[in-house]
Amino acid sequence: MSREPIPARISTSSKVLVERQFLVTVTEPVAIAIVGVGKIARDQHLPSIASNARFRLAATASRHGGVDGVENFETIDTLLSARSDVQAVALCQPPQVRFEAAAKAIRAGRHVLLEKPPGATIAEVETLVAMARSQGVSLFATWHSRFATGVEPTREWLKGKTVRRVAVTWKEDVRRWHPGQAWIWEPGGLGVFDPGINALSIVTAILPPVHVTRATLEFPEGRDAPIAAQLTFAGESGFSATADFDWRQTGPQTWDIEVETDEGRLVLSKGGAEMLVDGKAVLADSDQEYAGIYRRFAELIEAGESDIDLSPLVHVADAFMLGRRSVVEPFED
Amino acid sequence: MSREPIPARISTSSKVLVERQFLVTVTEPVAIAIVGVGKIARDQHLPSIASNARFRLAATASRHGGVDGVENFETIDTLLSARSDVQAVALCQPPQVRFEAAAKAIRAGRHVLLEKPPGATIAEVETLVAMARSQGVSLFATWHSRFATGVEPTREWLKGKTVRRVAVTWKEDVRRWHPGQAWIWEPGGLGVFDPGINALSIVTAILPPVHVTRATLEFPEGRDAPIAAQLTFAGESGFSATADFDWRQTGPQTWDIEVETDEGRLVLSKGGAEMLVDGKAVLADSDQEYAGIYRRFAELIEAGESDIDLSPLVHVADAFMLGRRSVVEPFED
Repeated sequence: MSREPIPARISTSSKVLVERQFLVTVTEPVAIAIVGVGKIARDQHLPSIASNARFRLAATASRHGGVDGVENFETIDTLLSARSDVQAVALCQPPQVRFEAAAKAIRAGRHVLLEKPPGATIAEVETLVAMARSQGVSLFATWHSRFATGVEPTREWLKGKTVRRVAVTWKEDVRRWHPGQAWIWEPGGLGVFDPGINALSIVTAILPPVHVTRATLEFPEGRDAPIAAQLTFAGESGFSATADFDWRQTGPQTWDIEVETDEGRLVLSKGGAEMLVDGKAVLADSDQEYAGIYRRFAELIEAGESDIDLSPLVHVADAFMLGRRSVVEPFED
Repeated sequence: MSREPIPARISTSSKVLVERQFLVTVTEPVAIAIVGVGKIARDQHLPSIASNARFRLAATASRHGGVDGVENFETIDTLLSARSDVQAVALCQPPQVRFEAAAKAIRAGRHVLLEKPPGATIAEVETLVAMARSQGVSLFATWHSRFATGVEPTREWLKGKTVRRVAVTWKEDVRRWHPGQAWIWEPGGLGVFDPGINALSIVTAILPPVHVTRATLEFPEGRDAPIAAQLTFAGESGFSATADFDWRQTGPQTWDIEVETDEGRLVLSKGGAEMLVDGKAVLADSDQEYAGIYRRFAELIEAGESDIDLSPLVHVADAFMLGRRSVVEPFED
């Protein structure tokens, strides 16, 4: 039995997929429409589009009102058929209905930006990837926390160091951040994993691959989504990691990732906005996440590329599949 | 804005990954070891290895006794260190402990065959894929039902036909097929998805991609795995599909996949062993599944390739993530 090594290549859904599909010469701002003008669209997408010269808000589709001075449509169907000038859409609805809208937009030849999580299932996003490829449009599955100020410097700082232990603490008050959003408690709304996936999107960006080895999911009585979860991870690289997600945190809110290495302890705090090494602040900045998303989306459109990394969603699905469920006291908004 | 199409390529974890990594010239039977000599190993793996001239059973690792005339080890660690002549291992333990064993075997440069499901999480199998690539060994995530007699003829028959509706009915008696197997009720054991994933492995082999759109999972009171599940699927191809999994079926057992097309109704019955078109048996054969697995494993080793298709596991994880849970009456073995 003899063996000759041959260069090999594998790409899996958990890895960043970036492909050059076509070349686009952008001579004027990309006409973009927002679909689903809810809290996240008003808080983040609209200001980020307004401050990015490479985009122009051309239309909206929303049943709950649009934006002054911009044409609004009841549905994405009417938008797509009436406005062939709209080149890109940003889908900001709940994940449970995002596949249908994305499929329609891609079929109509529009570039698509997906809010996080990119869908209610892994398989549906893989279908969108195949559709975007065959239609020659850019598909961007966004993870806004990856654009937080401290994330890239943290990845740089970790290079060459040996990671020993990682602890994620992501505790917030659901009443404060998701007021009246019924979809988060519905199947597919992910419950506490809706914020938790932000932490996982950072972990998967800065650290070697790990996988869930144990999970406990706490479901409030009568609810279809967890309000808290504790995860344990392991991986080939030898370090262990834990994640503690809780939606019942009143008072100060905690979005911290602690990384113990052989050369010191790094804390990425405030959702990634602050980076501390051995207790000293190295970096702190205001929220730049969605500005980063739209810069990246413009680059992808111009380069004819897509960017889909499903690894944060894979961890969530794995936690649901592997997790032990416990029922906790009822939760009322 | 002008656009020039450029050939593109995407590969995702749900698709079959086959890569040529190295060339192997097989001059004598591959020395293989079985790890986990339980029911499936005795019923299927041992006879299939015995009847395949390209393999030779060289050792086993099992705490519950091995095979007459073959050296048995307590653990895979002792097997790997004592027997460098063992070129390949077939991992037949419960999925919750398979990652550790697979990682050790790959690190030791052995080819690895994984019983289904290939792991307790999607992410861990993706890690194994990367490890197998860097070590230059073959990794084979098996789906035995795909080797059932009717599966390949069904795929051929469906070519060029329009699928309208798919109904999977997979109902069996857990007491009969999994006597005393506590791991199936533990987190990661998948419950009724342990047989159900066999159906999904056929569906993903014969039909265009779909994704779970709705799922109900029935958990017996006090158990950590579902005893029944009902799934609904949709996809880009326009047909709808349902799956009805139940572990409480006494009397006749049902493992049927019905496919309604524009040119007739196909039923793949008895877990894929029988194929009927418009009610008439076209094909029926005895169980050939594991013989097919070992033929394929020999080919992969000889060709220096791996074969990992995670799409059946992705559907299960998606169903857990998206599914609504209901608690049903307690189940005792």
